[in-house]
Amino acid sequence: MKSWMGEDLGADGFGLANVPYGVFSVGDGDLRCGTRVGDRVIDLTGLEAVGVLRPDADADVLDAPYWNDFMELGPVVWSGYRAALQHLLSDGASEDTQDAVIAHSVPVNEATLHMPFRVSEFTDFYASRHHATNVGAMFRGPENALPPNWQHMPIGYNGRASSVVVSGTSIVRPHGQLKGPSDEMPRWAPSERFDFELELGAIVGTTTDAPLSVAEADEAIFGYVMLNDWSARDIQTWEYQPLGPFQAKATATTISPWIVTAEALRPCRVAGPERRVDLLPYLQEPGPMLFDIDLDVGLTPQDGAETTITRTNYSEMYYSSAQQLAHHTGCGCPMRSGDLLGSGTISGATKDSRGALLELSWGGKEPITLNDGSQRNFLEDGDTVTLRGFAKGAAELISFGECTGQLRPAR
Amino acid sequence: MKSWMGEDLGADGFGLANVPYGVFSVGDGDLRCGTRVGDRVIDLTGLEAVGVLRPDADADVLDAPYWNDFMELGPVVWSGYRAALQHLLSDGASEDTQDAVIAHSVPVNEATLHMPFRVSEFTDFYASRHHATNVGAMFRGPENALPPNWQHMPIGYNGRASSVVVSGTSIVRPHGQLKGPSDEMPRWAPSERFDFELELGAIVGTTTDAPLSVAEADEAIFGYVMLNDWSARDIQTWEYQPLGPFQAKATATTISPWIVTAEALRPCRVAGPERRVDLLPYLQEPGPMLFDIDLDVGLTPQDGAETTITRTNYSEMYYSSAQQLAHHTGCGCPMRSGDLLGSGTISGATKDSRGALLELSWGGKEPITLNDGSQRNFLEDGDTVTLRGFAKGAAELISFGECTGQLRPAR
Repeated sequence: MKSWMGEDLGADGFGLANVPYGVFSVGDGDLRCGTRVGDRVIDLTGLEAVGVLRPDADADVLDAPYWNDFMELGPVVWSGYRAALQHLLSDGASEDTQDAVIAHSVPVNEATLHMPFRVSEFTDFYASRHHATNVGAMFRGPENALPPNWQHMPIGYNGRASSVVVSGTSIVRPHGQLKGPSDEMPRWAPSERFDFELELGAIVGTTTDAPLSVAEADEAIFGYVMLNDWSARDIQTWEYQPLGPFQAKATATTISPWIVTAEALRPCRVAGPERRVDLLPYLQEPGPMLFDIDLDVGLTPQDGAETTITRTNYSEMYYSSAQQLAHHTGCGCPMRSGDLLGSGTISGATKDSRGALLELSWGGKEPITLNDGSQRNFLEDGDTVTLRGFAKGAAELISFGECTGQLRPAR
Repeated sequence: MKSWMGEDLGADGFGLANVPYGVFSVGDGDLRCGTRVGDRVIDLTGLEAVGVLRPDADADVLDAPYWNDFMELGPVVWSGYRAALQHLLSDGASEDTQDAVIAHSVPVNEATLHMPFRVSEFTDFYASRHHATNVGAMFRGPENALPPNWQHMPIGYNGRASSVVVSGTSIVRPHGQLKGPSDEMPRWAPSERFDFELELGAIVGTTTDAPLSVAEADEAIFGYVMLNDWSARDIQTWEYQPLGPFQAKATATTISPWIVTAEALRPCRVAGPERRVDLLPYLQEPGPMLFDIDLDVGLTPQDGAETTITRTNYSEMYYSSAQQLAHHTGCGCPMRSGDLLGSGTISGATKDSRGALLELSWGGKEPITLNDGSQRNFLEDGDTVTLRGFAKGAAELISFGECTGQLRPAR
């Protein structure tokens, strides 16, 4: 799809095949809904107000600092609005339309990006076989690496919605109870094994009370973001038995600012892995459910240059977001617009494709070396972690933008 | 405190020492904020509208179907409003005032009660030593009953806010993955070991980003409700390793409709248990933090009569809600108005004081016998479970009302 806004917009992943949704402000102005095309942010709240492009004839659903009201309208509206927006931006749009769009846009470097939606609740899964096997081996020994239930269901736990923040927000190194294997008593101290986790986040668009099939769950997902589930490994080791991770995961979770829609990703579908055991019918996929998304993670020391510390692909996952959501609703648990589902850490089979320092440094035993020669087992104060994702398979590359955060010293 | 509304209002636990907060409607009318005194519900939204009693001079904070806006105003407003409300209801109130109150009230049996607040997020703890020891012995054997971290921190996990419902809501028996120890494969079927859990729920009133001391956490708690954390034990057994309970706890959590304020419970304070190991300083109590609340649970078979199946007291807990909240915020996790913290199942030392069927029937091996002669290991379709609580220590008994729900057959 060619755009009057410029040629080759898709080279950076923000062409008309993408058209992601975010929330931005300029200077001291209001928070507004927008999209990014090339290097411009288009004010969709403004285009709604002047009647150029309205998701709903009767209500100003984009007159809000989040996309939740729009999400509630459901897949038919999502699809119609996206088509109309793409039409507006395509070759052939009238000059009046082009003028209106330009009048309601700003260069991307003048816009401050905010949380694109209100997070209702946050659930985090554990769905890469390589990650589960690696972490399981470190926490429970190689003989108990993959829990017996893992191949039968998407294992997950509920996280904290209140600590989900947008890319660019600083993260403060948390305090917690720490206890080494030979310590007699725990102590209260800053985490010494603070880590990132490379994940994809799925955003539930429509509210539902009833259990969903995998196909229905797929329909209910509005879009995806990159997600960094910051994790304090030492807090986790001491606290997580028997009820799972709690304070280790509650300091912060960072998401990228642009929601890449499920519809944009449809051409990027790829099939999941071969399974050694059959899934129960309620978890079986009606078709390919994963996506071909190239992922990488950069680590930048304070005042230093970035080193790419891992490269992998989302198609490494064992369970898709649609399967996770179907499982989540199976017990009758209601889902609401704005529920966020973390995919779980995305790790490939090789050492350089692991999605967390815990795995990259093998529990702190094999430090990785950055380009400046310094080494890391876990994150140091001042380190910035940046996740990136590019989906392939559509007419153009689709970028998720950056999901970045700097670690600040403990208070 | 004597009330012109009647003598001996406190005999049922709804005298002026209580004055709990709820949300009600009459017929097809709007949801309104109210309190219960004796056998009448007083329309506090109405008294705000006519200017008789206003929490805030400038904003109609009770013109809402929940108490969250009021809660956000903080402890000074909570305390001032409560004092003014008690004054209005006390002997000595003018006749005009009495007329206004009566005009804005209805008999309790004409009012439908609703969720008293919007639940932001729900966290559930595991804070009775007897319960943790009993359940631990059943799930992990007697030698691993009490996890090593348990005496050092309040162990908890994040639950689902979306499935919290008000007393009186029917609960549908959930489906889930079940796998017996000798089964080769799991199956998808209705839970066969569906249970209740007797808990107290603490409601966070004020939003905060910073770690709280135990004293600060105590200040931030707005009030308490009875809480039944319905639990599918068979789903839990198969899913809970390694990341904790997930679908087993996500079908429903029932709360009582009246928020008993923290201020009302202040005279009911009692000290916690003796500790075998010292707590780290951040968890130490500045004074007595538990409450003397007599609790009981009734089980009523379909079309049958109620049997009281357990009696215990909240003072059996090892950690208070204030300690749980302080721990919860320790890693920097923001808390928001409307966050709900389940105490964990409240079990006493004796067999007849256990707070769940899992313990009462010792994992289904020692069924309990109801008054009609029928037996229960776990809940049967049609069973109604009713939790009740009465706090002692104030001028009058303080009732939590009922927290009840009937189990319906699986869909």
